[in-house]
Amino acid sequence: MASLTCQRHMGASSRTAAARRSPVLRVVAQAAPAAPTASHAVPASKLIDGKGIADTIRSEIATEVADMKKQYGLTPGLAVVLVGARKDSETYVRSKKKACAEVGFDSFGTDLPADVSEEELLKVVAAYNADPRVHGILVQLPLPKHISEKRILDAISIDKDVDGFHPLNIGCLAMRGRDPLFVPCTPKGCIELLERMKVPIAGKKACVIGRSNIVGMPAALLLQRRDATVTMVHSKTPDAKKICSEADIVIAACGVAEMVTGDWIKPGAVVIDVGINAKDDATQKKGYRLVGDVEFEGAAAKASLITPVPGGVGPMTIAMLLQNTLESARRAAKGEKAHH
Amino acid sequence: MASLTCQRHMGASSRTAAARRSPVLRVVAQAAPAAPTASHAVPASKLIDGKGIADTIRSEIATEVADMKKQYGLTPGLAVVLVGARKDSETYVRSKKKACAEVGFDSFGTDLPADVSEEELLKVVAAYNADPRVHGILVQLPLPKHISEKRILDAISIDKDVDGFHPLNIGCLAMRGRDPLFVPCTPKGCIELLERMKVPIAGKKACVIGRSNIVGMPAALLLQRRDATVTMVHSKTPDAKKICSEADIVIAACGVAEMVTGDWIKPGAVVIDVGINAKDDATQKKGYRLVGDVEFEGAAAKASLITPVPGGVGPMTIAMLLQNTLESARRAAKGEKAHH
Repeated sequence: MASLTCQRHMGASSRTAAARRSPVLRVVAQAAPAAPTASHAVPASKLIDGKGIADTIRSEIATEVADMKKQYGLTPGLAVVLVGARKDSETYVRSKKKACAEVGFDSFGTDLPADVSEEELLKVVAAYNADPRVHGILVQLPLPKHISEKRILDAISIDKDVDGFHPLNIGCLAMRGRDPLFVPCTPKGCIELLERMKVPIAGKKACVIGRSNIVGMPAALLLQRRDATVTMVHSKTPDAKKICSEADIVIAACGVAEMVTGDWIKPGAVVIDVGINAKDDATQKKGYRLVGDVEFEGAAAKASLITPVPGGVGPMTIAMLLQNTLESARRAAKGEKAHH
Repeated sequence: MASLTCQRHMGASSRTAAARRSPVLRVVAQAAPAAPTASHAVPASKLIDGKGIADTIRSEIATEVADMKKQYGLTPGLAVVLVGARKDSETYVRSKKKACAEVGFDSFGTDLPADVSEEELLKVVAAYNADPRVHGILVQLPLPKHISEKRILDAISIDKDVDGFHPLNIGCLAMRGRDPLFVPCTPKGCIELLERMKVPIAGKKACVIGRSNIVGMPAALLLQRRDATVTMVHSKTPDAKKICSEADIVIAACGVAEMVTGDWIKPGAVVIDVGINAKDDATQKKGYRLVGDVEFEGAAAKASLITPVPGGVGPMTIAMLLQNTLESARRAAKGEKAHH
């Protein structure tokens, strides 16, 4: 069983890819045509349809892009830098470019050999920093070992950091009275799902499972900003199950397949599953199926609302990347400078 | 009853000042000469002697300053900028300069009139940024209303931000695999107290009451970095008492006098009280006495360890400011550049 959680932006693209090829999904779609987004025997009213919500957001973005072109003669542009020829990274980069095209963005790309030097890569980033047609820059991770990810990510202009991973953005996310220029895409997508489903956050207890820089930690900060009372549990928490079972909102981003079982969930809680893991399954053609960090059937029996995997958080990640790029273009159109 | 909590660096200086003048302290010192730092009838073994620990740290710093002068010919320097003539601010600035002198630092100061322009103040900050004799810059808050605190604080060089309030420092505090150049003084002092008292943090439940940028939020991040399971409770938390009563470590920084009563405290918990509030008391010459955010007697009856007010966290804040300035000077001596 390989955990795939927490790799950059992989949620969205791998799930999208999975939705196209997964035999699990096909079988379920045939068995339960009334709930096409549900891959399990759970009432559709309980499911948070991430795919559908992401589609709505993408069409909202496409409309605004058309307006922006008319009003300002400006087209949002996203630059994606790929180093090496990892099959998975190539797939994600392709999905991102396709998503850009669908909403009317310009997409820029630089593919570099695996043995490119850090200095060469920094030059590519610097060129996109200076290019006014580019409003967002994304360097596909992971990078080859000889390159410092930290150094590359810090080199991306704060105005174009559509991933929201720059420490200055994270600092502004943590501080009251400040606003980050960009919020990291996956946790932003989790909150967007809660908000579009009209789940109250203020005054609620939230449990975030996992404390990664790209999901758990910023998700906790976002919930906190919305006046939830947040507990972040992690591998060193002795009684994670008990803490989780008291939460009204659970965001699972621990990267362990089906770790969060039904007995972790308070009756009526809302469950957002960020995980995507390949689980051995001899009945599948590929020998595996995709599961989240939540054991879906058990949790769904207790939850009032839950995201499926795939089709939950995954599609939101790319939608939020597009939204961040659009916001950046909007700031450029209005001639705003970076401020926090 | 006026809440004084959460004003910048006031804990330390006001408590130090209070310790000198408070009739409460004098009375208690006469009544219980065996426990001179305890202002209450609580076994000395339960008390965290912040004053004593801060004195130890200050003498450690003085020793290192002497070494640094010998080895590098370098004297750490702290610049304090004061705008206007608020009596309280003047007192704190005086305490800071006195503390600098005691450990052998150079101290620099600029006193500006209350109607100074933002541009003039920025020029003063820029001059200290450029001055190699200055390793830490502190702009005493609050500033007059016509000046943007955010703009001034952001102008302080990240290398000299000994308050640790720059969003880049806060971002690095929040992120795994990053280290801030400076940690904000009051929460750093809280953790230092726990560590010097050998209180285990990893795997423990911690409750931080209050979510200010200068105490609660960074305190939560620091506990989280040390593998505690942290819940931050705040004014929008419906059942703060219940959450707090399950915590092994409580940091109270809500700015409400004696809000945290004995029934909030789990038997055996460790309680760090950041608050300092003036409470009406007709029996006192001044008409008030100083109390924390914790109702001391009730909490002390349950806690295994507790900080008194005054004499707990307060003295640590200035000690940590000195330590941050020393670290900055040490980096300068070794010719290190800022990195995160």
